[in-house]
Amino acid sequence: MNFSIIRYILFRVLEFAALFLTLPCLVALIYQEEAGFAFAAVMIGCFLVAEIGKQWKPKSNVFYAKEGFVTVSLTWIVLSIVGALPFYLSGEIPNFTDALFETISGLTTTGCSILPDVEYLSKSVQFWRLFAHWIGGMGVLVLIIAVLPLSGGYNMHLMRAESPGPSVGKLVPKVQATAKLLYGIYIAITALQIICLLIAGMSLYDSVVLSFSTMGTGGFGVLNTSIGSYTMAVQIIFTVFMILGGMNFNVYYLLIVARKPKEAVRHEEARVYLLILFGAAAFITWNIRGYYSNIAVAFKDAIFQVASIGSSTGFSTTDFDLWPEFSKAVLLVVMAIGACAGSTGGGFKVSRLIILAQDMKKELLRVVHPQVVKKPHLEGRAVDDETARSIHSFLIIYLAVCIFSFLLLSLDKYDLTTNFSAVLATLNNTGPGLHAVGPTCNYGGYSALSKYVLMFNMLTGRLELLPMLLLFAPRTWRRY
Amino acid sequence: MNFSIIRYILFRVLEFAALFLTLPCLVALIYQEEAGFAFAAVMIGCFLVAEIGKQWKPKSNVFYAKEGFVTVSLTWIVLSIVGALPFYLSGEIPNFTDALFETISGLTTTGCSILPDVEYLSKSVQFWRLFAHWIGGMGVLVLIIAVLPLSGGYNMHLMRAESPGPSVGKLVPKVQATAKLLYGIYIAITALQIICLLIAGMSLYDSVVLSFSTMGTGGFGVLNTSIGSYTMAVQIIFTVFMILGGMNFNVYYLLIVARKPKEAVRHEEARVYLLILFGAAAFITWNIRGYYSNIAVAFKDAIFQVASIGSSTGFSTTDFDLWPEFSKAVLLVVMAIGACAGSTGGGFKVSRLIILAQDMKKELLRVVHPQVVKKPHLEGRAVDDETARSIHSFLIIYLAVCIFSFLLLSLDKYDLTTNFSAVLATLNNTGPGLHAVGPTCNYGGYSALSKYVLMFNMLTGRLELLPMLLLFAPRTWRRY
Repeated sequence: MNFSIIRYILFRVLEFAALFLTLPCLVALIYQEEAGFAFAAVMIGCFLVAEIGKQWKPKSNVFYAKEGFVTVSLTWIVLSIVGALPFYLSGEIPNFTDALFETISGLTTTGCSILPDVEYLSKSVQFWRLFAHWIGGMGVLVLIIAVLPLSGGYNMHLMRAESPGPSVGKLVPKVQATAKLLYGIYIAITALQIICLLIAGMSLYDSVVLSFSTMGTGGFGVLNTSIGSYTMAVQIIFTVFMILGGMNFNVYYLLIVARKPKEAVRHEEARVYLLILFGAAAFITWNIRGYYSNIAVAFKDAIFQVASIGSSTGFSTTDFDLWPEFSKAVLLVVMAIGACAGSTGGGFKVSRLIILAQDMKKELLRVVHPQVVKKPHLEGRAVDDETARSIHSFLIIYLAVCIFSFLLLSLDKYDLTTNFSAVLATLNNTGPGLHAVGPTCNYGGYSALSKYVLMFNMLTGRLELLPMLLLFAPRTWRRY
Repeated sequence: MNFSIIRYILFRVLEFAALFLTLPCLVALIYQEEAGFAFAAVMIGCFLVAEIGKQWKPKSNVFYAKEGFVTVSLTWIVLSIVGALPFYLSGEIPNFTDALFETISGLTTTGCSILPDVEYLSKSVQFWRLFAHWIGGMGVLVLIIAVLPLSGGYNMHLMRAESPGPSVGKLVPKVQATAKLLYGIYIAITALQIICLLIAGMSLYDSVVLSFSTMGTGGFGVLNTSIGSYTMAVQIIFTVFMILGGMNFNVYYLLIVARKPKEAVRHEEARVYLLILFGAAAFITWNIRGYYSNIAVAFKDAIFQVASIGSSTGFSTTDFDLWPEFSKAVLLVVMAIGACAGSTGGGFKVSRLIILAQDMKKELLRVVHPQVVKKPHLEGRAVDDETARSIHSFLIIYLAVCIFSFLLLSLDKYDLTTNFSAVLATLNNTGPGLHAVGPTCNYGGYSALSKYVLMFNMLTGRLELLPMLLLFAPRTWRRY
């Protein structure tokens, strides 16, 4: 392991953390809030440590996949701790474990809170919570790659370890150009949502922070009722942008940059993603029709909740924990599938599901026609054996993490439904679960042990399993 | 598809069904029960149809894996329907769906009942329920292979499709000799259990039928309290024989026939199986210690329940649905893992778990050392790519069946825990689940649709997924 380069990158990450922290400082200044001092202190601390530390140049430029994974995990852990400090120091989340939980939930775009009441938070702390979604959505290392002239082989390894999906979605041959394009598209769609919300009559502050939360597919809100107390028009805007956040960004590239609308419309993962969302919404509408006087309103609530859970955002307009079992079961399945690869969303990812479905069909066919060997296909191309195999491994590790977390959570006081849904909601970076962690409840009741298990799940889910798990393999830490 | 040979084998199966039915007729004769007429009628019917039908010789001897799978599925469906008739005709289970459910639960060695009270059943009907476990445990086609001189390629295809485990466990090069050996060992251990139970003071009838139920890893009992009201000595005998029923029969072959005790003791799957059972029992003992005055009694109950669930038997001595969440979570995990391949038990199988665990470790190592390529090993031999791949497919299909069944059950009136545990308990051929399908409850409250879903699960689980699913693939039914 080349520790010196990892150390160097981590100091650069702290530099960016300081940069990010200027924004809540500014918000605190505008709204004249005391919390500004906490942000300023942490910002100055980060800046000083980063400026001193980055003088300590790396001894070697050796950078393999292993270094990429470890750098990404440590980046996220460092950012989480630094991000939690203002919550803790401002006194608005007085328990450090809770502050860390809230930060990790923010950065990983999970959006599950330990706070029973989010409305008492100051504007700057609120801003920091929701801005974390936006930063975590596309990834901080992707941002660093986009803006810093880091040359050498490590761009690709970092990008691969931080981007969601079975294969890294390089839009253009150069990694840095891809990172720039991704952030460009991301900023453009976020700006579009802010404009839509402003037109719908929302205040500037709310429009900005809630657009951060939506496009990062996070789920933190500014009101205790999440999105439930906004107007119908605003709810529809959120529905649309949640779906957009969970869409493969390749589609936007094809549509906006490459100007190939036909290819964009034919994008297989995007089509299956939309099919799942609208299919699930149709089933749920049929299931909850008795709860509503009007089928259109039932559909509006169904598609909002499905878009929210399926894109791994986690907003809610109604307490779906009160829906019938079938609707809740559909939501759990949609939650586990998650969003598209190459999006800001979490979950198992639609593209992996497409390939597994083909594997399943192939296995059945193989019995009937043993001589036929067919490879799975995605976006019109055959999936190479390596990728197919890594998707199988992903499934196995995903299940193992689910089972272990579920066992550990069972030591706590809640029932099976709560624990099972909490595991899915954190590992898939969704946010709300069922029963005691349902949309009107929060994760504050779990013990500290359970909270650390859930934090691990959120990070593991966001970084797609391997990076976090590698930290526990002794071999990872061997020096060259 | 070569329909003529499948038809021919099915008539031979009916012949065997008639043979099996002579036993409950005999029991009815001894106990002078009216139900005997129902058994006699079905027996004579089967016999006549079989004798006439088997004159209709197959046109071709073409027999591929496909024919093997379809023959096995249809055999089990035909046997289930024939087996349900005496329950229905005797009037002791007046609803045919329920009679079919009970028969499938018997044959697949699941042991979940729709009967709120099993003590009112007549001796012969009771015998038929528990004898079904014994027949289904080792498999009816394995029996046919053992006793009929069916030559040609189909022995292997039938054996592969009916035997549990990732690769068919041929003990000796000849399939028929293997089948004979398996049934020999099976009969010997069953006889041993009967003797043990007789010595412990149980009546002959109860000893015989409960040994059928134990060695088939079934779980039907003769009392409403399952095994809870028997003496400590009897409970320990059951614990031991449940564990033996879920053990890979290869171990007995090595021990008794090949006389290689050292190899038997070194059997990897058997060791991991015992480790899982005793590990789970230790965790549960620690978790439930507060419920008992004596830790030894807590351990006795823990190991009984774990052995019962892990071997996929499903007996109980206590209502484990009242245990704390952690113990229930451990039981659910043990349930999903299931017994050894090459045993009479159900579940995902320990050997598959061993290979998946190695795959997981390999994937983590691959990031650290990309150049190292290591194949998974089982019993000291490298697992070939084909087997490893088929285990991955098994996992994918297993999950797909779980998710679809869970969604369909959610349409019914029960909660998530009930439905989730019912899916696992039927697909893994265990029997009792949690909440409304817990050890003191029964499956009678489910709607007919849910019951058919669960019946499908039981058959799919017992036949290890592919055979039942192939029935739904249109290509399977194409003529040559």
